[in-house]
Amino acid sequence: MAISFTLHATDGAARAGTVHTPHGDVSTPAFMPVGTQGTVKGLTPEMVRDAGAHILLGNTYHLALRPGDEIVRDLGGLHTFMNWNRPILTDSGGFQVFSLAGQVKITDHGAKFKSHIDGSPLELTPERAVEIQQNLGSDIAMVLDECPPADGAPEVIRRAVTRSIKWAERCKRHHSRPDQAQFAIVQGGLNLDLRAECAKELVAMDFPGYALGGFSVGEAPEAMHAALPACAACLPEHKPRYLMGVGRPQDLLAGVASGIDMFDCVMPTRNGRNALAFTDEGPVRLRNAKHRRDPKPLMSGCGCYCCANYSRGYLHHLFAAEEMLGPTLLSLHNISFYLNLMAGARDAIRAGRFAEFRAGCLARWTPAS
Amino acid sequence: MAISFTLHATDGAARAGTVHTPHGDVSTPAFMPVGTQGTVKGLTPEMVRDAGAHILLGNTYHLALRPGDEIVRDLGGLHTFMNWNRPILTDSGGFQVFSLAGQVKITDHGAKFKSHIDGSPLELTPERAVEIQQNLGSDIAMVLDECPPADGAPEVIRRAVTRSIKWAERCKRHHSRPDQAQFAIVQGGLNLDLRAECAKELVAMDFPGYALGGFSVGEAPEAMHAALPACAACLPEHKPRYLMGVGRPQDLLAGVASGIDMFDCVMPTRNGRNALAFTDEGPVRLRNAKHRRDPKPLMSGCGCYCCANYSRGYLHHLFAAEEMLGPTLLSLHNISFYLNLMAGARDAIRAGRFAEFRAGCLARWTPAS
Repeated sequence: MAISFTLHATDGAARAGTVHTPHGDVSTPAFMPVGTQGTVKGLTPEMVRDAGAHILLGNTYHLALRPGDEIVRDLGGLHTFMNWNRPILTDSGGFQVFSLAGQVKITDHGAKFKSHIDGSPLELTPERAVEIQQNLGSDIAMVLDECPPADGAPEVIRRAVTRSIKWAERCKRHHSRPDQAQFAIVQGGLNLDLRAECAKELVAMDFPGYALGGFSVGEAPEAMHAALPACAACLPEHKPRYLMGVGRPQDLLAGVASGIDMFDCVMPTRNGRNALAFTDEGPVRLRNAKHRRDPKPLMSGCGCYCCANYSRGYLHHLFAAEEMLGPTLLSLHNISFYLNLMAGARDAIRAGRFAEFRAGCLARWTPAS
Repeated sequence: MAISFTLHATDGAARAGTVHTPHGDVSTPAFMPVGTQGTVKGLTPEMVRDAGAHILLGNTYHLALRPGDEIVRDLGGLHTFMNWNRPILTDSGGFQVFSLAGQVKITDHGAKFKSHIDGSPLELTPERAVEIQQNLGSDIAMVLDECPPADGAPEVIRRAVTRSIKWAERCKRHHSRPDQAQFAIVQGGLNLDLRAECAKELVAMDFPGYALGGFSVGEAPEAMHAALPACAACLPEHKPRYLMGVGRPQDLLAGVASGIDMFDCVMPTRNGRNALAFTDEGPVRLRNAKHRRDPKPLMSGCGCYCCANYSRGYLHHLFAAEEMLGPTLLSLHNISFYLNLMAGARDAIRAGRFAEFRAGCLARWTPAS
C-alpha cells in the first residue's frame, strides 16, 4: 500500500491522525494548499513549507491541458517539476470538467468537453484520469467522479452516484502505480440515503482513502454542516477522510467536528490576492483606507512571515500600488492561518477539548472590517 | 559624514571600493535593484538580500505620491516600512517628474506637475525633494535635478545644467539629516564641455558623492559609452560615482571601465516579468516553445534560487499559465545575474584583469534566443 493511516486520538467524532505517504507524513486534520497549475499562486514552495504545509493539491484537469501530463512526467514528475518534495494529492479533473470546460457531454464512457484555454476538444475517461495522475506521480490520486450541482434534480444526482461508482471501479482496475494511492469519492448531494448507498458500494471496493465530493457547490453552508456527520460516519474509521474543496475556516471546523481528516480550498490564496485576510478577529480587508497609517501587524500574535515583518499600513500600500508582494504576503498569511487552525484543532483533539476550541474560534471571528 | 568611501584597487580607470553607510557597507562596483514603490517587484527583501544585494533604490516621486513620505516616516521610515535593513538610496524624483508626470511646468523655483495616478496638482522644489527624502530616511539622498532629453537643443541642455547646479546648492543648504548623505547630479547630455563645467561647479560644493544623470534617455548606447570616461574623470577620485538608470549588462561594464562605482536599472526586474532572462550565453526568452520540454536550468552554473531548483520547461509553463511565480523567479535570476556580474567585476579589478573579464563577457553574450 502506498499510504497508510494512523489514528492517534478521537474527541467526539473529531479525529487526530497521521497519513503516511511515500513523500512523508501528513498530520491530520490537514489543510492542503492548492497548487492548481503546479504552483501555489504567488508563493515559492519554501514559503508554503515554512508556513507549515505537509501536503499540496495539484490539479489534474489544468496540468493535463497545460503543460500536459507527459511533459510533467518527462520533466521528473510533479514533485520535481514544481520543486515540492513533500506529499501531493491530485484531484481527478472531474470537478473542473463540470465547472470550467465548455460544452461538456457526459456518457457512461467518460466526459467529452472543450478546453477552457483554446476550445480544443478533449475527453476525460476514468482510465485517462488514472493515466494522467500516474504521469503526474502524486502520492494520492483521486478517482474520476461526476459532480452534480447542488440544485440537481433527484434523478440527476442518482445518475451521478451510479456513474461515479462505476467510474471508481474502472479507475481502481486501471490503476497500477505502486507508489501512489487512489482515493474514492462519495457523491449524492444532500440526500443522505444516496450518500450512504454510494459510500457502501465504494467501501466494499476497499480503497485506501475516501473523499466526500459535491459539497460547497452552491448549497447553504448550514445544509452542508448538517449533512457532514452522517456522511463521514459512512466511511471506514481506519482510513483517511477528505472533504473536497471546502471551505471557509468555520466550514473546516464543522468538517473536523464531523470526523473529516483532510481539506483543500482556494480561499486562502484567492482571498489573499484580493486583499482579504483571515485573522483571529475575523476577516480584514486591507484595501480599507483605515489601515493606511496603521503600524500594527495584520494579526497580533501571528508568527507568519507577513505578520512578523510588515505593518497593515505597508500591506495597504502594496495593494493600493498594485504590487505583487501584496498578494504574496496575504496569501502566505492566509495559508498560515488555515494551517495554524488545523494545528490548533489537532492539539485540541488530542487534549479532548475540540468542542471548546471550535466554540472559541467561532466566538472570535466577527464580520469583515 | 553619513557615508565614506574606501578605494581598494584600480585597474585602468575601473575601481573597486566600499561605500560605508549607516546601514552597512556596499562593495563597489555595485548594482542597486530598484524598489520603486517600496518593494522590488515580485520579490521579498530576503530574496533580494540572498541574491547578494548590498543596497536598494527607492523612488522619491512614487513614494511621495503614494503612500506619502509622511506616512512612510510615521511607519518607521523606508527601511522599516519595506523590511530592508541594509542601505537604501533614493533618487530625487526629478527624472520621474520629467518622464511620468503630465503637464510639467518647470521654473527656477521648481517643477509643477500633475500626478500620474490621479492628476492632482503637485509641486517638487529642491527643498521639497530634500524633505521627502529626509522623511523616507534613506542612507543616500539625491539632489533635485532637471533631466533634459537626449535630443534636447543646446540651449535646453545648458539651461538644465544651470538650473541643476542652482538646485543642488539649494538642496545642500536645506539638507539637515545627519544620518543621510546627499549626492549631487551632473547633467549636460553628450556635451562634454557642459558636463565638465557642471561637474566643476558641483565638486566645488563638496558633496559626499556624485552621480551622472541624463544618460540612457534616448541616445545611442555607443554615444553614452564614448562619453562616460571623460565624465567620470571629472569627478573626485575619493568619492563614489553613480551612473543613474543604466542599463544593460554591457552598459554596466562600460561604466565600470570608465570608473563608475554604482548603478541602478529596472531592466532585470522588468525583463524578468516579461519572461526575458539574462544569461552567460546572452538573453533567453522563456516564452519560446523550444523550452517546453527542456529539463535544463535557465543558466547552467548559476547558483541562484531559480537555477538551482527549476527547469526551463517549468519556467516556460509558469509564463504560459500566467502564474506569478514566473515573474518572481525570472526577476530573481536577473537580479542575481546583475549582482554576480558586479561581483565578478570587483574580483577582476582587484586581480588587475578587468579588461579580460569584460571582453570575455561581451564575447559570450549572444543575441536573444
